[in-house]
Amino acid sequence: MSIRIGILGYGNLGRGVECAVKQNPDMELAAVFTRRNPEELSVLTKTAAVCHVKDVESWKDKIDVMILCGGSATDLPVQSPEYVKMFNIVDSFDTHANIPEHYQKVDAAAKEAGRVGIISVGWDPGMFSLNRMYASAILPDGKDYTFWGKGVSQGHSDAIRRIEGVKDAKQYTIPVSAALDAVRNGENPELAARDKHTRECFVVLEEGADAAKVEYEIKTMPNYFADYDTTVHFISEEELKKNHSGIPHGGFVLRSGKTGWEEENSHLIEYRIKLDSNPEFTSCVIAAYARAAYRLYKEGQSGCKTVFDIAPAYLSAKDNAELIATLL
Amino acid sequence: MSIRIGILGYGNLGRGVECAVKQNPDMELAAVFTRRNPEELSVLTKTAAVCHVKDVESWKDKIDVMILCGGSATDLPVQSPEYVKMFNIVDSFDTHANIPEHYQKVDAAAKEAGRVGIISVGWDPGMFSLNRMYASAILPDGKDYTFWGKGVSQGHSDAIRRIEGVKDAKQYTIPVSAALDAVRNGENPELAARDKHTRECFVVLEEGADAAKVEYEIKTMPNYFADYDTTVHFISEEELKKNHSGIPHGGFVLRSGKTGWEEENSHLIEYRIKLDSNPEFTSCVIAAYARAAYRLYKEGQSGCKTVFDIAPAYLSAKDNAELIATLL
Repeated sequence: MSIRIGILGYGNLGRGVECAVKQNPDMELAAVFTRRNPEELSVLTKTAAVCHVKDVESWKDKIDVMILCGGSATDLPVQSPEYVKMFNIVDSFDTHANIPEHYQKVDAAAKEAGRVGIISVGWDPGMFSLNRMYASAILPDGKDYTFWGKGVSQGHSDAIRRIEGVKDAKQYTIPVSAALDAVRNGENPELAARDKHTRECFVVLEEGADAAKVEYEIKTMPNYFADYDTTVHFISEEELKKNHSGIPHGGFVLRSGKTGWEEENSHLIEYRIKLDSNPEFTSCVIAAYARAAYRLYKEGQSGCKTVFDIAPAYLSAKDNAELIATLL
Repeated sequence: MSIRIGILGYGNLGRGVECAVKQNPDMELAAVFTRRNPEELSVLTKTAAVCHVKDVESWKDKIDVMILCGGSATDLPVQSPEYVKMFNIVDSFDTHANIPEHYQKVDAAAKEAGRVGIISVGWDPGMFSLNRMYASAILPDGKDYTFWGKGVSQGHSDAIRRIEGVKDAKQYTIPVSAALDAVRNGENPELAARDKHTRECFVVLEEGADAAKVEYEIKTMPNYFADYDTTVHFISEEELKKNHSGIPHGGFVLRSGKTGWEEENSHLIEYRIKLDSNPEFTSCVIAAYARAAYRLYKEGQSGCKTVFDIAPAYLSAKDNAELIATLL
């Protein structure tokens, strides 16, 4: 029997999960839950039900794992502890500073309900976290570096769009090659924000807006841009649609470390991803962890889990003998 | 209390494990076991006992994890099933084709004794296996590539040394840049052995040996060299010692895959290591898995495990709250 998946929230991430489920023959999409009018929502999977989120409880025994596809700012802090009372869940909660608190809330609710909740799944947090952890366990005397990009930062694009006179905008985060090379060369550099990433902005102005003023406001915006070398390009709406409608992303996790009795030898571990679609890749990671949630629940486990707590084999559709024979 | 480590076999790998234990404050080296005369073996750790391997049984309750540092050809197939009857063990068995059989033997013995045996730990098998597995679970519709090098292949160097007229030799396995780039570009190339790696040999001849004949024998050697573009350099013994006495290695695991409803988006996952010392890096991975073996045993688990079976958190000296706060 397939693993019956539910999707709660049908934005970019929800659609990505739908595509990922299609690629995994041991899963099927049972239902999509929306806060909108379900009659007006059309999904790609013809066999899946489309339901209003208020009816979710009646699906309690018809869904094995519910994927929560809401945002980390306001949706998931409420949804994850709530829905784990009814379902095994996977979320992609990515507000790093608040993960410990989120973990506690999901853990308490999941344990009480006897369900499994896997939080903060995706690539960062997610695969990048795993790679930071494995590499630091292997090379205890070393230094970690994470670079993001080249890719679209939704948060920074939104920040530009809030400026008066801006009609639309896309912001790319770009790792600085020289910094990456210094890390790869084992130089263990100390890197400020400005040294690691540059920011490139493509902005469509409202008619009559003051370009110089918009550029100044972007470049001096605290936290978002002031600490970086930022480039601003003003382009037409057509150009933005044509050349900047994708959601690519990527990044690098590196650890450089020393070994040997006198620490005389150097080593580098590098993990890199290059993604055409950020939400679709995140969704693929989520689908693999949904398989893990299902299996852990079947084994009688409960509580909140992160990527650190889950043995890799749980993610794979292959059984142990096949994994050993083909991938070890 | 620290994790008490034993080392069985004091070659390059054994010495590497000794260095790795020094870097992990929650571990201590209790004893080194040798088939040589212990009186004639001096180890770096002044607090560690040096014992003959015939006395190993008396250490049954004084060692938490025994690291088996023998070779895969003849040592480990015998040692791992034997010593797991007395100790939790970690080995680096790397004859890929024989891993399933090795697993079965270690599993039976470990279960009977109530011990944990973690096999095939290192980087390939080991970290490369993990990365193949994670990447294939995340991108089910994709293609895997593993490249090795640039680094010294012990097996190929030995094969050259067995040729008549050869006094000493080192062989480097080198990945072909063009092939790596094609994979990174998402071209999903079909690659024969020759397309992926070249082989570079540095050979010291015996006096009076026939260089042309040696070169011909190397280049036509089945399995080892015949299927590759091989370069042979004849050098002096001094030059070999000066420039080729290190044991560097490294490599790349890549997976390129498609996502999206019509598989319209491409993604690349790349894991790369660059090592000054192959045995020391392998030893670092082994040390982290020794920590896991200790913890699994404390939890009451038993049997044979591979890197696929072990949740990442078991490898780290940090506790769960610290992992979540600092690395997730």
